[in-house]
Amino acid sequence: MGKNRIKKHNKKLGKPPGSVIYTGNKSSKKLFIEAFDYNVERCNEKELTTIEEAFNFKGSDSVTWININGLNHVEEIEKLGNHFNLHPLVLEDIVSISQRPKIDEHEDYLFVVVKMLYHANDESIVAEQVSFVLGKGYVLSFQESEGDVFDAVRERIRQGKGRARSMQADYLLYILMDAIVDHYFTIIETLGEKIEDYEDAIFSGHVGKTINKDIQDLKREILRVRRAIFPLREVINRIEKHESPLILKKTKTFYRDIYDHLIQVSENIDIYREMIWSLMDMYMTTISNKMNEVMKVLTIMASIFIPLTFIAGIYGMNFDYIPELHYKNGYYILWCVMIAMFLGMLYYFKRKKWL
Amino acid sequence: MGKNRIKKHNKKLGKPPGSVIYTGNKSSKKLFIEAFDYNVERCNEKELTTIEEAFNFKGSDSVTWININGLNHVEEIEKLGNHFNLHPLVLEDIVSISQRPKIDEHEDYLFVVVKMLYHANDESIVAEQVSFVLGKGYVLSFQESEGDVFDAVRERIRQGKGRARSMQADYLLYILMDAIVDHYFTIIETLGEKIEDYEDAIFSGHVGKTINKDIQDLKREILRVRRAIFPLREVINRIEKHESPLILKKTKTFYRDIYDHLIQVSENIDIYREMIWSLMDMYMTTISNKMNEVMKVLTIMASIFIPLTFIAGIYGMNFDYIPELHYKNGYYILWCVMIAMFLGMLYYFKRKKWL
Amino acid sequence: MGKNRIKKHNKKLGKPPGSVIYTGNKSSKKLFIEAFDYNVERCNEKELTTIEEAFNFKGSDSVTWININGLNHVEEIEKLGNHFNLHPLVLEDIVSISQRPKIDEHEDYLFVVVKMLYHANDESIVAEQVSFVLGKGYVLSFQESEGDVFDAVRERIRQGKGRARSMQADYLLYILMDAIVDHYFTIIETLGEKIEDYEDAIFSGHVGKTINKDIQDLKREILRVRRAIFPLREVINRIEKHESPLILKKTKTFYRDIYDHLIQVSENIDIYREMIWSLMDMYMTTISNKMNEVMKVLTIMASIFIPLTFIAGIYGMNFDYIPELHYKNGYYILWCVMIAMFLGMLYYFKRKKWL
Amino acid sequence: MGKNRIKKHNKKLGKPPGSVIYTGNKSSKKLFIEAFDYNVERCNEKELTTIEEAFNFKGSDSVTWININGLNHVEEIEKLGNHFNLHPLVLEDIVSISQRPKIDEHEDYLFVVVKMLYHANDESIVAEQVSFVLGKGYVLSFQESEGDVFDAVRERIRQGKGRARSMQADYLLYILMDAIVDHYFTIIETLGEKIEDYEDAIFSGHVGKTINKDIQDLKREILRVRRAIFPLREVINRIEKHESPLILKKTKTFYRDIYDHLIQVSENIDIYREMIWSLMDMYMTTISNKMNEVMKVLTIMASIFIPLTFIAGIYGMNFDYIPELHYKNGYYILWCVMIAMFLGMLYYFKRKKWL
Amino acid sequence: MGKNRIKKHNKKLGKPPGSVIYTGNKSSKKLFIEAFDYNVERCNEKELTTIEEAFNFKGSDSVTWININGLNHVEEIEKLGNHFNLHPLVLEDIVSISQRPKIDEHEDYLFVVVKMLYHANDESIVAEQVSFVLGKGYVLSFQESEGDVFDAVRERIRQGKGRARSMQADYLLYILMDAIVDHYFTIIETLGEKIEDYEDAIFSGHVGKTINKDIQDLKREILRVRRAIFPLREVINRIEKHESPLILKKTKTFYRDIYDHLIQVSENIDIYREMIWSLMDMYMTTISNKMNEVMKVLTIMASIFIPLTFIAGIYGMNFDYIPELHYKNGYYILWCVMIAMFLGMLYYFKRKKWL
Ligand SMILES: [Mg+2]
Ligand SMILES: [Mg+2]
Ligand SMILES: [Mg+2]
Ligand SMILES: [Mg+2]
Ligand SMILES: [Mg+2]
Ligand SMILES: [Mg+2]
Ligand SMILES: [Mg+2]
Ligand SMILES: [Mg+2]
Ligand SMILES: [Mg+2]
Ligand SMILES: [Mg+2]
Ligand SMILES: [Mg+2]
Ligand SMILES: [Mg+2]
Ligand SMILES: [Mg+2]
Ligand SMILES: [Mg+2]
Ligand SMILES: [Mg+2]
Ligand SMILES: [Mg+2]
Ligand SMILES: [Mg+2]
Ligand SMILES: [Mg+2]
Ligand SMILES: [Mg+2]
Ligand SMILES: [Mg+2]
Ligand SMILES: [Mg+2]
Ligand SMILES: [Mg+2]
Ligand SMILES: [Mg+2]
Ligand SMILES: [Mg+2]
Ligand SMILES: [Mg+2]
Ligand SMILES: [Mg+2]
Ligand SMILES: [Mg+2]
Ligand SMILES: [Mg+2]
Ligand SMILES: [Mg+2]
Ligand SMILES: [Mg+2]
Ligand SMILES: [Mg+2]
Repeated sequence: MGKNRIKKHNKKLGKPPGSVIYTGNKSSKKLFIEAFDYNVERCNEKELTTIEEAFNFKGSDSVTWININGLNHVEEIEKLGNHFNLHPLVLEDIVSISQRPKIDEHEDYLFVVVKMLYHANDESIVAEQVSFVLGKGYVLSFQESEGDVFDAVRERIRQGKGRARSMQADYLLYILMDAIVDHYFTIIETLGEKIEDYEDAIFSGHVGKTINKDIQDLKREILRVRRAIFPLREVINRIEKHESPLILKKTKTFYRDIYDHLIQVSENIDIYREMIWSLMDMYMTTISNKMNEVMKVLTIMASIFIPLTFIAGIYGMNFDYIPELHYKNGYYILWCVMIAMFLGMLYYFKRKKWL
Repeated sequence: MGKNRIKKHNKKLGKPPGSVIYTGNKSSKKLFIEAFDYNVERCNEKELTTIEEAFNFKGSDSVTWININGLNHVEEIEKLGNHFNLHPLVLEDIVSISQRPKIDEHEDYLFVVVKMLYHANDESIVAEQVSFVLGKGYVLSFQESEGDVFDAVRERIRQGKGRARSMQADYLLYILMDAIVDHYFTIIETLGEKIEDYEDAIFSGHVGKTINKDIQDLKREILRVRRAIFPLREVINRIEKHESPLILKKTKTFYRDIYDHLIQVSENIDIYREMIWSLMDMYMTTISNKMNEVMKVLTIMASIFIPLTFIAGIYGMNFDYIPELHYKNGYYILWCVMIAMFLGMLYYFKRKKWL
Repeated sequence: MGKNRIKKHNKKLGKPPGSVIYTGNKSSKKLFIEAFDYNVERCNEKELTTIEEAFNFKGSDSVTWININGLNHVEEIEKLGNHFNLHPLVLEDIVSISQRPKIDEHEDYLFVVVKMLYHANDESIVAEQVSFVLGKGYVLSFQESEGDVFDAVRERIRQGKGRARSMQADYLLYILMDAIVDHYFTIIETLGEKIEDYEDAIFSGHVGKTINKDIQDLKREILRVRRAIFPLREVINRIEKHESPLILKKTKTFYRDIYDHLIQVSENIDIYREMIWSLMDMYMTTISNKMNEVMKVLTIMASIFIPLTFIAGIYGMNFDYIPELHYKNGYYILWCVMIAMFLGMLYYFKRKKWL
Repeated sequence: MGKNRIKKHNKKLGKPPGSVIYTGNKSSKKLFIEAFDYNVERCNEKELTTIEEAFNFKGSDSVTWININGLNHVEEIEKLGNHFNLHPLVLEDIVSISQRPKIDEHEDYLFVVVKMLYHANDESIVAEQVSFVLGKGYVLSFQESEGDVFDAVRERIRQGKGRARSMQADYLLYILMDAIVDHYFTIIETLGEKIEDYEDAIFSGHVGKTINKDIQDLKREILRVRRAIFPLREVINRIEKHESPLILKKTKTFYRDIYDHLIQVSENIDIYREMIWSLMDMYMTTISNKMNEVMKVLTIMASIFIPLTFIAGIYGMNFDYIPELHYKNGYYILWCVMIAMFLGMLYYFKRKKWL
Repeated sequence: MGKNRIKKHNKKLGKPPGSVIYTGNKSSKKLFIEAFDYNVERCNEKELTTIEEAFNFKGSDSVTWININGLNHVEEIEKLGNHFNLHPLVLEDIVSISQRPKIDEHEDYLFVVVKMLYHANDESIVAEQVSFVLGKGYVLSFQESEGDVFDAVRERIRQGKGRARSMQADYLLYILMDAIVDHYFTIIETLGEKIEDYEDAIFSGHVGKTINKDIQDLKREILRVRRAIFPLREVINRIEKHESPLILKKTKTFYRDIYDHLIQVSENIDIYREMIWSLMDMYMTTISNKMNEVMKVLTIMASIFIPLTFIAGIYGMNFDYIPELHYKNGYYILWCVMIAMFLGMLYYFKRKKWL
């Protein structure tokens, strides 16, 4: 997630404002456009092959969701934007994928930027930018590439059970955002488990060589997830307070529910943040404890054998007259003395709880 | 407390909003419903066998408390909710047990979510979610399973002494929440004692092998208790400012009293939080002090005996001509020299305060 | 201060709200009631033997101060409370000695809870709860036991010099609270000195064995003093903004003066808090420096004598043919070599600044 | 950046307010003045040789940008200021290059101070102060010396494509500030890379000798970049809320876009700040791990050879009677014993995972 | 600065409010009063010998500055205060030198307390309290003792150049406070240099023995300077918003300029605060690095010579039959083996980068 985030901005250095320039990795992602047009009685689902097919949905009485995938297709996005009267800066934001979550309240539409978080195949966290435009009777959504967390939403619209098809476009925007926020729980759960794994690893002493880099990376990841999620609370708040026919009063209760979820996620993130900050301290004490272990072994070995070696050295001296050397049981007596010293030292270290 | 909290949410991934799905561990907890119906003169207490029995209490003049235990019985809860006109999102929240404390002010009822904290048999802290619905003349309470901190409340209602039976449903909600908050003091008292136990253990050096994991776990526990308690302050605040006949002016003074208690609890938690954060530092200095101890022993032993061993080595050499070896009292003189060196070193370490 | 603070609350678990239960240590402290009744011309001072004697002062034109000591005498306090129309929750708070400083604005009286800090005989800090009720023409004060910081106030009232007797009851409350706040300076001065003592001790290396526990305890003490003092700022603020005949405009300037003092005290406490938090770091560097000292001694001794011992060992070998052993001055030459090595090592360590 | 920042202020000690004194390094930077005067149809670009040439542009209908480089030319700046009716304190601020970003709203002009950040040739970050005066139909900009980030802006004005020449002076100020803010991304990207470089260096163990000073310097740099950027958010906010014909409503949307960018930059800076704060901890664990390595080698060597040496010492003693010395295979048996001890120690250390 | 600050308060324990008691060190500082009385045309400068001489200036049309030095002369200050109708609490504050910066808005005068920071002869920072009273046509200033930062102000008034003599008393207060704030830059510049000096010392390893105490002291100093400066921002803010003829609208722009300066100073202080907090970490890594150095020397010496000594010990044994001893070149072969081992160890340590 994000190491190359900031660089993306450089492509736009010196460009006039409102320049619609895709800041992601230029790849030949194909453009994929799908449209849902429904009311309480029917639901038309269709894959569009040209962007112009989307133009007719604008004035219809039914609710329309046009989902555009492939932000590298800037010309099509500009065409759509012009047809729907979007401000040039809005179009610029749609394809600038380093936006933070935000809401811009324009006269006849709302523009909302959200981060959709999910795990990539290599278990890293991907933060795909999803932009929504909520107008009268329609929701436009823009994703960097195909693939999202909206499958359950599609199914509910198709089947038309419950509230899904009997409400307006503001409710459609709600269920899309709700699907994204519901996914946040999966993401942070994994973060929490990682922290606990590290705790267990450090505690049991089975730490890999990369542990301090891993912790540093996890800190960064938590800070970035935080940045992707926290500003969304203010976005939802602004939707709740928005005064225009675009957001109906009865739908606001549902947005309130997203807000509750965001607060839950945020609190968990902040707990994780505090926990990981003290992981390093925990690691440090573990290292120090190990060093203590090492030092004790050294000290015990040295303290026991250095004096004994000294005594052996004494009786290895070549003085003409060393009376002990000629004692009858001198050698055995010395062994007794040395064993006594040995046991004395053992007792001393035992009492000190070093053994 | 809570390690498996977040996972519970996943059961709802992709479900439409307002889906009443129990997010706890599916167990066959039996449904237990009790009802109190009272006014100043009389009190009927009854265990209900079907949820339909609860329906009649809705319109009564007396004050009714219906206490539902067993959130896995979602159909019954939905039935009750429909009879009492509860919003689908309210029903969803009642059985989603990872809610944070909150209040939702609906037109003809208040919905309050609270965490009831108590110690499980294994001394861990359990945070059971309790939801309250306060309507005209009734309080509904929803608990995950039987067993709570309301026994004293029941007794007071039965006996009808004091204010208990002469006030309205808003006062009933108050005494229920007050019972929960009063219990928080017991919980945090235990936390405070644990911290002091760890301090004593670290100070006296009698730390178990798991001390740094234990501290890390206690940090997490404090952060989670904090999260269960802190949002409740805002809930009470909102009740105090609530303007509708559901909350009478004279009852607000009592809610203010709960608020005072919550602030007291919160301040204690934040003190504990700061204290435990410095426990690790305290532990670190203890380890370092021990290593100093170990190093001193090694240094003293080595510094004393290595030079002496060197001297013994000198006179163990086989040079043809080493005059000292032939001195008459060479051996004794050497002993004197070595004892002098020994004492000199002892004096040196004594003066350095290492001994 | 306060280790057994929280436990006191447990006595009230399950009791109905407004239960007037003394939460301190049940002791047979005698009830001591004193009354001052004065106006600009005269001053009656009297010790009351029954609580009923206090009832007459309620309607008098003069200013009355009734000072009740002995919170274990709950019946008398309830009698007085009923006579002065105090709310049951106020009476409960008066005898619940773990209140945080607060103000409750009732219709015809103000209820203020303050912590009176002073040093006990063993130099620990005592936080005695003092509650004030300010009504029309009277101030009631409630203390846990006899003994307070009001002697100078009593003297000023007796002598009637200055403003003391010419102002109303709001001014009486002011000078009582001012006396308490003035005492805070003495308390925090001692805390500041303790920190500097620890700094000096750590710096000079003369630390007791309990230093890290001492620091931890001082942290806790500072956090608790903070908690006793900080909420009082809000209390004074509310008095300044209070709109009723109980607080005259000209008296508010004086309350503003208390506020200034509280800010001064608060700032000092927060400086102490930051200072003590870095004491542990300072201690840690001291330990590490000492270990460095120890290690240097060991390294120097070992580095000098281990090679020399090796050389002695060489010439202690019993090979048939070791030419040096038969050199004429072999022994003396070896001594020269060894002294040269010794001096070389000394020079090396000198240059490394280890000596 | 900035080490000599504060000193610059001293030149003004004791000077009256409104003294126009250049606080940078007095150098003989030449004065360079360029002027753009344009409307939707034409664009005059011109280098001015005297400041008086700039006076005529004041009343023109077209939009004028006068860009003054060389803040040491205080007399010319004062002349210009007097002609354009600038407040003496504004002139003082223009040439006092240690201003923080700010906006002063005067009656007929806005005064804005911004920090233009770019990399100097030695890769250090330069924060050049740029002051803007936005009046009716003109923008004055003041830079310390020639060279800026406005080249793309100049090109757009010359070519007159897009909005550049069809909007008013408020839009001109916008594109100038936008160019500066776009450059911030480049700056913080470099900071982020530096942190990651340090992480990699510490992790791989290839740290230079200056690593802790480098980290300290980077901390300082991040704090200073933060200080240059953060106050600008408030400046833009005030422009958005400014009510006068100087700022047209339709331009405010564009300023909002700058605000979004600033928030993005700010969040990145704060993440970097947290990351670098834990770099030192990471470094500390690396050092401790290395010491553990060193200690293990020592302990293993000593633990293996010290006992063996002791045994050799035993049989080097000169006692008259040591039976083992006369065993037939005594020497070989001893070698076996010693090799067994050696292998035993190796096994012990292997099991302890020290090898 | 400040170690004995808090103690000063104790002198007032038990004194009635409004007691004018000097809380500084009772010294026989002489009273020094100077008066400036000026308008745009003339300027009278005069040293007053009695306080009564100051009384006449009260009603004059010209602007008057009366500067009283010597707060121990409380009677004179009380006389002056009574003549100018100052509130007793104001007089108390003037001579209580532990006030924090503040403003009290009275009906016909403003009372402002400021800390004048300058370096004492021993380079420590002195915080002298300066109180100002701004009334109609006059400014009173009170200093603890003679000597201040106002000399440039005096000179400007005498010479009457610029705005100095053509403005009202509010402008006089401004230039006095401006002179004090300008001096703050000098103070914090010194603090910044001290931090960088410590960084350099720690980095280069040339730290004095007192380094950790020095850092602790510097922390305290920064916290105290912070406390002296930060509240002044609020004071200036209140002056800007003050609505009365005492502060003219055109002067407020000038106070805004002080505010800008205070924000600059404050930001620098907070950067210093963060920098010094990480100095200790930097010191800690330095110590650990040094210990690593020491340990490496020990380990290398021991690892090389202990095995060699063991081998020498082997051939010093007195077994009857040790074949190697009788090899022809046994001694030389052994040397070769030992040199090979020596080189092998060197290579090993070289590869480990320990050499
Ligand atoms: Mg990055
Ligand atoms: Mg741009
Ligand atoms: Mg944008
Ligand atoms: Mg996608
Ligand atoms: Mg949801
Ligand atoms: Mg919900
Ligand atoms: Mg978890
Ligand atoms: Mg859902
Ligand atoms: Mg239960
Ligand atoms: Mg309670
Ligand atoms: Mg919880
Ligand atoms: Mg209470
Ligand atoms: Mg720490
Ligand atoms: Mg406690
Ligand atoms: Mg209770
Ligand atoms: Mg008392
Ligand atoms: Mg006072
Ligand atoms: Mg600086
Ligand atoms: Mg000046
Ligand atoms: Mg200025
Ligand atoms: Mg430039
Ligand atoms: Mg831009
Ligand atoms: Mg740390
Ligand atoms: Mg540390
Ligand atoms: Mg102090
Ligand atoms: Mg006083
Ligand atoms: Mg005062
Ligand atoms: Mg002075
Ligand atoms: Mg100034
Ligand atoms: Mg101060
Ligand atoms: Mg630290």
